[in-house]
Amino acid sequence: MRRWARLSSTPIVDDKWFRVTADRCEIAPGKVIEPFYVVHEKEWVHVYAVNANSEVLIVRQYRYAADAICSELPGGVVDPGEEPERAAKRELLEETGHVANRWSYVGKLYANPARQTNSVHIFVAEVLDLAGEQALDESEEIIWSFSTQSEINDAILRGEFSQALHVASLYRVQQFLRARGDA
Amino acid sequence: MRRWARLSSTPIVDDKWFRVTADRCEIAPGKVIEPFYVVHEKEWVHVYAVNANSEVLIVRQYRYAADAICSELPGGVVDPGEEPERAAKRELLEETGHVANRWSYVGKLYANPARQTNSVHIFVAEVLDLAGEQALDESEEIIWSFSTQSEINDAILRGEFSQALHVASLYRVQQFLRARGDA
Repeated sequence: MRRWARLSSTPIVDDKWFRVTADRCEIAPGKVIEPFYVVHEKEWVHVYAVNANSEVLIVRQYRYAADAICSELPGGVVDPGEEPERAAKRELLEETGHVANRWSYVGKLYANPARQTNSVHIFVAEVLDLAGEQALDESEEIIWSFSTQSEINDAILRGEFSQALHVASLYRVQQFLRARGDA
Repeated sequence: MRRWARLSSTPIVDDKWFRVTADRCEIAPGKVIEPFYVVHEKEWVHVYAVNANSEVLIVRQYRYAADAICSELPGGVVDPGEEPERAAKRELLEETGHVANRWSYVGKLYANPARQTNSVHIFVAEVLDLAGEQALDESEEIIWSFSTQSEINDAILRGEFSQALHVASLYRVQQFLRARGDA
């Protein structure tokens, strides 16, 4: 199957949080398409943090583009030079005040590989402790709570846990836990 | 939980396939952030098309932004004025040459609600017939085949079925089929 060749790539937006290029691509010998817009996002992390009662830490926050309040797994952006696991630990602490003593890497999934460059790295965090307060940016308002897997499934059915990227991470984590013999 | 108010929205890219605005948002009384970039995508559809042997129709194609060959469910963009179910039928036929005689709407998930406006609408298509040839754009190269659910799970573990949006749709479909008593 043919890969495309990047003939040129012109920056259109070059912001700290968002970068877009307009690319000129050779999709077959002599066949060129342009512009093909690419969204360059930093890598992302999702954390499936589970307590001793098998309840999962869920965060709720407002998401502007869809104008919706969404339930999600804790997570966020991997900073430049940061390892994904370090980002996962930082985001869990910042968003929920929790630390975990057992971390497992589940795998990664492309966020939207046709248009967008990045992947979501998925972690399981176990043996949780509430270590302190949230440490949020002033633009962030996040409410955390614990839910059972069955409550999460009900929330998906009701459209409250409705972020495709986070539903995908739940699938990967359940696959991971089954392979480990937990579920 | 506070919603943001859109004070203004300035077009940055306004292409047939891709639209970006830079928005000025009041996130709390007197507190403004700008620019907040929003990607305006058309609605998307995914089709879980399953044959009499419970095998699922999978398409493989090259995805430029991630430079990866991905296994996915058939699907694509809902055209302006088109109903999602009609788009699902059209995409299934164009990408694989198949028609289905039984269609069920599973639900929708936000693709990436922080940054992106659209949702993925998920359908189950049953009682399949191979009605003709693929009808692809000249930039498209798609290979279709049938896989069992266990082969799909193995492909996810190997990183070959690695599109978060499509993994999310599988989760929703399995939930839907369980609720219907199929699995």
